[in-house]
Amino acid sequence: MREQMTVLGRQAREASRALAGLTADEKDRCLRAMADSLESAVPVLVEANRRDLEVGRGLGLSGAMLDRLALDEARIRAMSQGLREVADLPDPVGRVLDERTRPNGLRLVKVAVPIGVIVIIYESRPNVTAEAASLCFKTGNATILRGGKEALNSNRFIADTLVSAGRRVLGDRFPSHAIQLVGTTDREAVPELLALTEYVDLCMPRGGEGLIRAVTACSRVPVIKHYKGVCHVYVHAAADLQMAEDIVFNAKCQRPSTCNAAETLLVDRSIAGGFLPCMASRLAGKNVGFHADSDSMPLIRFGIGNRTSTVREATDADFSTEYNDYILNVRLVDGLDEAVAHIRKHGSAHSDAIVTGDAAVAERFLREVDSAAVYWNASTRFTDGREYGMGAEIGISTDKIGARGPMGLEELCSYKWIGYGTGHVRG
Amino acid sequence: MREQMTVLGRQAREASRALAGLTADEKDRCLRAMADSLESAVPVLVEANRRDLEVGRGLGLSGAMLDRLALDEARIRAMSQGLREVADLPDPVGRVLDERTRPNGLRLVKVAVPIGVIVIIYESRPNVTAEAASLCFKTGNATILRGGKEALNSNRFIADTLVSAGRRVLGDRFPSHAIQLVGTTDREAVPELLALTEYVDLCMPRGGEGLIRAVTACSRVPVIKHYKGVCHVYVHAAADLQMAEDIVFNAKCQRPSTCNAAETLLVDRSIAGGFLPCMASRLAGKNVGFHADSDSMPLIRFGIGNRTSTVREATDADFSTEYNDYILNVRLVDGLDEAVAHIRKHGSAHSDAIVTGDAAVAERFLREVDSAAVYWNASTRFTDGREYGMGAEIGISTDKIGARGPMGLEELCSYKWIGYGTGHVRG
Repeated sequence: MREQMTVLGRQAREASRALAGLTADEKDRCLRAMADSLESAVPVLVEANRRDLEVGRGLGLSGAMLDRLALDEARIRAMSQGLREVADLPDPVGRVLDERTRPNGLRLVKVAVPIGVIVIIYESRPNVTAEAASLCFKTGNATILRGGKEALNSNRFIADTLVSAGRRVLGDRFPSHAIQLVGTTDREAVPELLALTEYVDLCMPRGGEGLIRAVTACSRVPVIKHYKGVCHVYVHAAADLQMAEDIVFNAKCQRPSTCNAAETLLVDRSIAGGFLPCMASRLAGKNVGFHADSDSMPLIRFGIGNRTSTVREATDADFSTEYNDYILNVRLVDGLDEAVAHIRKHGSAHSDAIVTGDAAVAERFLREVDSAAVYWNASTRFTDGREYGMGAEIGISTDKIGARGPMGLEELCSYKWIGYGTGHVRG
Repeated sequence: MREQMTVLGRQAREASRALAGLTADEKDRCLRAMADSLESAVPVLVEANRRDLEVGRGLGLSGAMLDRLALDEARIRAMSQGLREVADLPDPVGRVLDERTRPNGLRLVKVAVPIGVIVIIYESRPNVTAEAASLCFKTGNATILRGGKEALNSNRFIADTLVSAGRRVLGDRFPSHAIQLVGTTDREAVPELLALTEYVDLCMPRGGEGLIRAVTACSRVPVIKHYKGVCHVYVHAAADLQMAEDIVFNAKCQRPSTCNAAETLLVDRSIAGGFLPCMASRLAGKNVGFHADSDSMPLIRFGIGNRTSTVREATDADFSTEYNDYILNVRLVDGLDEAVAHIRKHGSAHSDAIVTGDAAVAERFLREVDSAAVYWNASTRFTDGREYGMGAEIGISTDKIGARGPMGLEELCSYKWIGYGTGHVRG
């Protein structure tokens, strides 16, 4: 296993050097050909996927898992469309990030360069294969993809299709190890791969908290990730209550399965009576279940009225849980300090919002809540590469080193310093 | 041990929150008071250091190690001066790194923020304590310092002095755990500390390759580092040979103990006869020893003449060795491709230079050599925070994630995204 992974790593390193030499136009032509190839291969890919689904059923995967695994023509066309959109984005490599001429005349230029070799570890959704590979390819990075064992046939077919398309466009100039799939489902492959500090520059795990913790624990290479999204909306005493209601409703209900959906609503005690019953009533319309502190419970019950939404007392653990579902924690607080303390204790440093008309309070919240994204009078749902104008997103980071928040093409780059001298020596 | 380190980590996290609330002026006043306190404490610090030196002699430390450990009045004044210079630099926290208003009117601002909690692991030099602590303090980061066991008395006194000075200026507003020294010399402290993913945001080890590999192997938190500096100067056929001689001489001899000093000289075969004898002659004047490939050896011998410099055949391992000494590897190459291949195989991705008058060749070198800093007609010795105009430097990174190259104050920051809405919800 060690040897097998070392070969993958070495091949990826070599490919990354060839990739760095491709022009933007060459890369974009490859991406468009990859999109075309995937579309022409719809029947074969659906068949490969059918085998995965069969195995998945045999393994007793849940309906939701099987749905994530399934590919049909529409999903494959969406995948292709994604590749074309990546081709249309500007090349982030070579951007000048900083430039300075020193008093001695030495000119220093800080330039964006590919990171090099990126390992992507993910779970069942096979569209991640095309998405991650295309974003890394566009940024000149070689990828080693490790998908879920239940998606092996689909992933293998997608990866092969992308590489063949690239070779068709560029011939030998296309490095055939630019996109590699880990061919084994052996669990040992991951720690072996992530021990290759010489060949691997970054690992990005995408999936549940368990997967990500396991990756972080064994990796010797840098990891960029978010463990989970426990996002908050804090409705401050000076909030416009109608605005607050709209934001909370959007943050919870627009797409509860996402990491930037809100899990917890914090409400200033002084306005709770005028706010929570209406809020609860509206959420009950979506059959949201409430985990509430004892003080907010009567107000929520009153709001729910005779609808079917449930309320139970929130536990301490509830406040740190990412539900990905129509469930909301609710707690009353006595002002900003208590709200910030709650978020520091229970939050996941992902996305947190305050609703208030008081600018001074908002500024304190935005400064004191140390999350990747903080919002004033906006929904937490905006933490997303497309919403940020990045064009595409490979993931969201809650780390402090390297990228933080949504990661688009620019966040898949490193940089180097170039010094232009005329015989400069140090005195 | 685990419990003891967890307490350090938790205290650091709390301190980092208080630090993030200090103004630039408050931080700078603290730094100046810290400088004053260190200067007033010269006799006591020299005495604390004398005890360390005694223990060090008992442990059988080499003369060079004892010299690195030793503090006298001049070195303490230099330390204080360093603190004042840090105070004079602009505050990097709060800088707007990017700003965009989306078509829906949501305004997104990317702002520099402190990283949070930084663990610094270093070897014998106690001045690192003041330097690292001050740079982290200026950037609003809490530090946990782990120095060498031989410097414990000096380090403890310095850390205590910095904290007392801060408290004298700000009273209770100064978080007394902003600067903490690991009080035990137990080896287990490091892995325990670097397992605290909840409390520690970054580890920066400074020291020899062995120390840094050990840290990387055990850390679960991000590490920014360079393993070693195996830097190259490549003298291309179209080089101005006088310029090349000056650059090579500077890169090797100006301060051989530094990581950005050159270890290997690559020379195009076609000009070797006209270049190497003069070059070797000049280096022999500094008694540089040569590890050379067989083709370059006669030219070097001829250049040395009857001086005392030695030449022996270079081994493969030599080409990957950081000597930190007056030793230079020499190899003849047949053009750019061979030079780049050599650097890819043996280099440490730190600093590499080409000397040439051919712009097209230079551009290829600057693109294809994937090092933190690459130079055209300039010495590798420029890779340094002060030379880059950063004002100060906490270290040099050869990593691709987070900072790369010299790390000054800006590189000790992370960022967050702030979204300003007017009731924005996602559609």
